[in-house]
Parts: sequence; structure tokens; C-alpha cells
Amino acid sequence: MKILVANLGSTSFKYRLFDMASETQLARGGIDRIGQDADSTCVAEVGDHKLQEVKRIPDHAAAVRMCLDQLTNPQTGCLKSVDEVAAIGFKAVFAGRLSGIRRVDAELLSTMEALADVAPAHNPPYAKAMRQLMASFPEIPLVAALETAFHETIRPEYRTYAVPYEWTENFEVRRWGFHGASHRFIGSRMAQLLGRDDAKIISCHLGGSSSVCAIEGGESRSTSMGMTPQSGLPQNNRVGDFDPFALRLLKRLTGKDYDTLLNDLASKGGLQGMSGVSPDLRDIEQAADAGNARADLAIRVYAADIKKYIGQYLAVLNGADAIVFTGGIGENSTRIRSLVCENMTYAGIELDPAKNVPVKSDTNLSAAGSKVQIWSVPTNEEIVVARQTVKVVEG
Amino acid sequence: MKILVANLGSTSFKYRLFDMASETQLARGGIDRIGQDADSTCVAEVGDHKLQEVKRIPDHAAAVRMCLDQLTNPQTGCLKSVDEVAAIGFKAVFAGRLSGIRRVDAELLSTMEALADVAPAHNPPYAKAMRQLMASFPEIPLVAALETAFHETIRPEYRTYAVPYEWTENFEVRRWGFHGASHRFIGSRMAQLLGRDDAKIISCHLGGSSSVCAIEGGESRSTSMGMTPQSGLPQNNRVGDFDPFALRLLKRLTGKDYDTLLNDLASKGGLQGMSGVSPDLRDIEQAADAGNARADLAIRVYAADIKKYIGQYLAVLNGADAIVFTGGIGENSTRIRSLVCENMTYAGIELDPAKNVPVKSDTNLSAAGSKVQIWSVPTNEEIVVARQTVKVVEG
Repeated sequence: MKILVANLGSTSFKYRLFDMASETQLARGGIDRIGQDADSTCVAEVGDHKLQEVKRIPDHAAAVRMCLDQLTNPQTGCLKSVDEVAAIGFKAVFAGRLSGIRRVDAELLSTMEALADVAPAHNPPYAKAMRQLMASFPEIPLVAALETAFHETIRPEYRTYAVPYEWTENFEVRRWGFHGASHRFIGSRMAQLLGRDDAKIISCHLGGSSSVCAIEGGESRSTSMGMTPQSGLPQNNRVGDFDPFALRLLKRLTGKDYDTLLNDLASKGGLQGMSGVSPDLRDIEQAADAGNARADLAIRVYAADIKKYIGQYLAVLNGADAIVFTGGIGENSTRIRSLVCENMTYAGIELDPAKNVPVKSDTNLSAAGSKVQIWSVPTNEEIVVARQTVKVVEG
Repeated sequence: MKILVANLGSTSFKYRLFDMASETQLARGGIDRIGQDADSTCVAEVGDHKLQEVKRIPDHAAAVRMCLDQLTNPQTGCLKSVDEVAAIGFKAVFAGRLSGIRRVDAELLSTMEALADVAPAHNPPYAKAMRQLMASFPEIPLVAALETAFHETIRPEYRTYAVPYEWTENFEVRRWGFHGASHRFIGSRMAQLLGRDDAKIISCHLGGSSSVCAIEGGESRSTSMGMTPQSGLPQNNRVGDFDPFALRLLKRLTGKDYDTLLNDLASKGGLQGMSGVSPDLRDIEQAADAGNARADLAIRVYAADIKKYIGQYLAVLNGADAIVFTGGIGENSTRIRSLVCENMTYAGIELDPAKNVPVKSDTNLSAAGSKVQIWSVPTNEEIVVARQTVKVVEG
């Protein structure tokens, strides 16, 4: 069975095509500048072939059509016909209690649209593109793997906010958690690497957006993102955990209304806001090396917050077998890994400085005597979505 | 030197009078229903004498006058004259960067009034009563011990929010922390009990309002309340940590404006909001025993949040020498202590179930093999305020 996994941006489309019998990637590609007043570059890698075409792409349906044309090209493609695509899987962000893995239908789409205030950067472009694809490719099943699905195993005491109870009951106000596909992948990959199914893992997905997850026996027990993807660790330009009652003071002192303040927190906060340098940690590390004090502070706050979440999850899990770093920052920032792991000997966590280099494959970074293993593992959210899509298609 | 320590409510006044040469308590007392259309009960305990008088008390100045009359009563009092009171000390909540311990002056009062939006339940009654006392007792120095003072030693990476930097710089948006007098007391008392000044202590002040603090060498390293006393652990009727971006969804679904939602979170949340039973944990435990599922959930969320903060602070401190429970809940709720300490063997934390009973004095509750000691210690915020008041009076 061949599954296309789609990654949608408001003006972009990226995909991977998998043959699920062997879980091998047949092709990958992407298109930028969709619906803009400019030509798009449409790239595809099929085996050793690299294709590139430049043309105007008006919408996401046209983008998918273009990609399928490239994939079914008789000379360079890997598909005889579009019929071979059993389904398109999406890593969708938030649909409240319509969580889990499910066929994309009218109810899901209208729910995602209604909940745009929870995930304003993610839900609207996904819902819009999915609508176009449903209309243009009625013969291909669309499957949404909600980012919240992995966290449905979190027990009530770790997901409930201390709000008026009717908000929990009627308005779905709870710690939903996100990055589910990535944390699920890390949980299952670590079970293979450690050779056991009951392992206790703390997964640190650190990148443009970041979260930490406590995993036991492959199930999520607690995670740092709460009701919305704006909470938890500081993000590239989003605030992370914050005291909402500070908004009153800020309203008075800045003269801004609450909506503007929330917009500021979701676009001018995080690593960007603290450092004043960039939302990208690589730029911030460079600035800190050049003596920029705010850049140094941003790095220290980010690392301290990761360390505090790891501390929390050691308590939630009663210790851990492994701490795993993944995502662009997790796999490459030796500084963050070092700051996070320093002075953690109370829990038997010790990084080997000699092993703490940027890595591209599964690597154990622990010192010889470390009771808790420390790993860097590249995540693979797409294969998780592809596996889940197969399950839905097979019913 | 004799110091009166005052505890102000909007319609109440409680005090203790200390002789600071020996740090002994000479008297204690209190007055309720101040400024109300009813008679107040004015009680005082001086040595073995208990005094009680019932009369109309129009304001806090009259309340203090009444108390001083009782204390200087030739038959039953302990003071020859009011001149013996060297100063009145107050546990004040929030004045932003006017933190620390300081003489009450016009600048402090206007700052506390301006910052009422940060501590709406605390700042207005304190500022109002202090103004009355300044006018009525110009000869007695008034000293404010800000609840934030103890937390000034928290390093920038543990106090900075990932907000636009000018908010940190210009608007004092940071994790201030509260309950400073109580955590300071626990830090110094545990140094005595453990016989060392460099101990690492996790202080859990659990009561009508609750917070956890990481203490090292008598200094605060991190604490659970952030910018405002509405954050951190769930409080009696206040929410504790919450994702501000959920407010958008709540605004749409409830039709309430942001200010109303924040008011709800500060008065209909916490233990009261989750349980629907009471803001008082004793009532909630009773309801849970009778089978009330929401009461049981409220207890579990509260305990889980304490456990997560202890986990964080073990990471911040690289382990701890002792975990201390104090406050009404901390000293009496064996259920909370048991839930918090269960499954914490990874960090060498083990409660002795046989010792886990309500206690009234400093008690070690740890199991024989527990690496981290677990204590219940009655707090004494008043003696801390009295000591600090002496320092200010002596310059």
C-alpha cells in the first residue's frame, strides 16, 4: 500500500510517499509560494532522480495535482497511476474532542475551523487545503492524524486545569498536548533501541516549536504543551508558559487590548522576544558567542525550562530509562544538551562531553556511569502518520 | 525591643507582639468586622490572660488603637506605654521593584495601590490600612516586609518569562514569587534542624494559598508562584498555572469578556472550581471519602501539581536534603503528603506511613532508608517579619 504524507503550510506543500509493505520512502518533494503572485518551484526526489519545475500554482489542489503528475511521469516517476495512492495522511493539529486518527470529513473540517483560536497558525491553512483536496480528489481518502491523539492516555490529574469545572466539561479546556507524532515515534524507536516495551522515556522535541513528553510503555503520561501550542517551553516566537494575570498589568501599562497582547505573546515572544536577535537558536548561539547578553539569557531560559520539565517528568514517571533529544535543536545544539544535563547527578543523568557533538543518526550520548541513558534520535513524524493512515484505510 | 507584627484583612486585623531580645511572643490578638455595620469582637491573649471586648470598630486605625489599649491595660496588659512598641511590621504582598524590607512611605503606598491588578485580594486592603495607621500613629515606624523579597536571589534564567523583552525591562514582568516570609522561615529552621547552613530544601507551603520553593543555603532558587499570586499551584479558589491562550476560546464560547474570565479564574477556580464542594481541602477530602468523584479529582490534581513542582526543584537544586510540608494542609493532610511522596523512590524520597499523621511541631516523617528527609514543620511568618522589622528600625 502506498501512502502520501502531506505537510501543509499556508503557502507551501511538502510530502513524502511511502511503500508501507517495506516502510520505505519512494519519493519526497515540495512546492512553495502557493496562491501567490509569483511562480512556484516544484521539486521532487524519486530514487536518484531530482525533478524541478517552475510554474504558477494557484492553490493546494493544484499543488497536489502537480506533485502527482511528477510522481506518475512515465520516465522518472515511481507510480503507474494516481490510483496507486491508497490515501493521503496529514499531521493535523487541533480538533478538540475529535482527536485520534480519522477520515477527513465535513464535521472534522468545520471543527478545525471553529477552533482556529486555539491553533491560529496551523488550523486555518490545513482546513482550507483539505477542503480543496476533498473536492479535487474525491477518490483518494484523506486521513487526519491529530497531534493531540498520542496524549489521550494522560491521566485526569495530569491533564486537568484548576478552572471552573464547567469549562473542563463543556468547553474542552484541558492540557491537550501536541507534537504527538514525534513523541510517539521516539517512544517506539526507543523501545527498539533499548530492547524493551515498558521503558520510561523523556522525549525532548526541540526545534522551531518545542515540547517535552513523559512516555511509559509507549504511552504519553504528561507533556509540556497544554491547551494550545503556545504554551509549555518557549517557542521560536511564541511565549510558552505564562501567567495570564500579568495581562491586566500589561493592558494598563501598554494601552494594548487583550487580543493584541495575546498576539504579541504568540508572535513576538519566545526565543525571538527574549533575545531580540532571531527566532532561530543557531543565530542566537552565534550572537551569544559574540557577547550579546540577551542572546545568552534566551539560551539559558530555554535550557532551564527544558531542565525543569525533565525534572517534572522524572517525578511523574518515578525516574526514567532514557532522555532523548530530537528535532533540529535537539539533534544539533550541543550547548542546549550540555546546559540541560549539567548538575543532574541526583537522578543519575550524566552526559559524556566527548560524545556531545551534532549527530545525524541514533546515538547514545551518556557517560559510562550514567544510570539514565541520554540519546539523540532523529524523529520521523511522517512514518508515524503513514502507519496510522494505513490503519484507518484498512478500517 | 518590642515589635508588633500585623496581619491585615479587608475587614480584620490580627497581630502578635514580640520581645525581640529573646524572640518571645508577649501577646497575640485580633479584631474582626472592621468598618462594618456590626459590633466587632476584640480578643487579646497576654500571657495567661484572655481579654475580650465587643464594640464598634470603624476602621483599621481604631482597631490598632483598641489593641494597644488592651496591651497597655495596667491590670492585664504587658506594655507600660505605647512608646514601647518600636515598630509595626507588615507582611506586604507586592510593590514590584520596591521589594525587600522597607519603611512604609508615600512612594511604597502609591506603588502598592497602582499594582492592585497584580494582587487584587491583598494590595488594596493593606495600602488602605497602612495609610490610616501612618496618619494615626505618626510616632510608630511602619515597616513592610514584601512577600517577594526572599525570591530576589532567583537567577535570571529561573525568573524570566519568554515575553517581548521590553515587558521584562520596562514593565517588571517576571516571576516574582510570594510567600517569602514562610519559605524564609522554613529555610532557616531546617538549617537548625539539619545542623548545616548549605542544605538544599524544597519547601511546600500548602494552605489557603500554596506555593513550593527551592531553597539552597537559605536562599530562594526558584518558586512556583510567578508574576502574580494567582499562578503556580491551584489555590483555594484561584486557578494556578493556566494557558492564557485558552482565554480566546473561552471568550468565544462563554460570551464573557477577558476581565470577567480572569475574575472567574481568580475566584471560581482552584480547589473550589475543580471540586464544586468548597475551597477548603478538609471539606473536599470528606466529600471524596463519601464518593464524590470531582472532589477526588481536585485532590489528585492538587497533589500531582505539588509533585511536579518538587520534581522541577530536585532538578534545579540537583537533588535535595529535605522536603518540608508546612501550612494548614502541609501540616495536617496526611493524604496530600502521601499522594505527593508516592512513587518518588528514583530520588530517594520515601515517606514512613506510620509517621504520616497530623503533627503540631517539627517532625521527621521519612522512612528509615529515605535519602531525602521529609519533614512537617509549622511555619512562623510573624517571627520572620519581626526580625526583618528590627533590622530596618536599627538601620
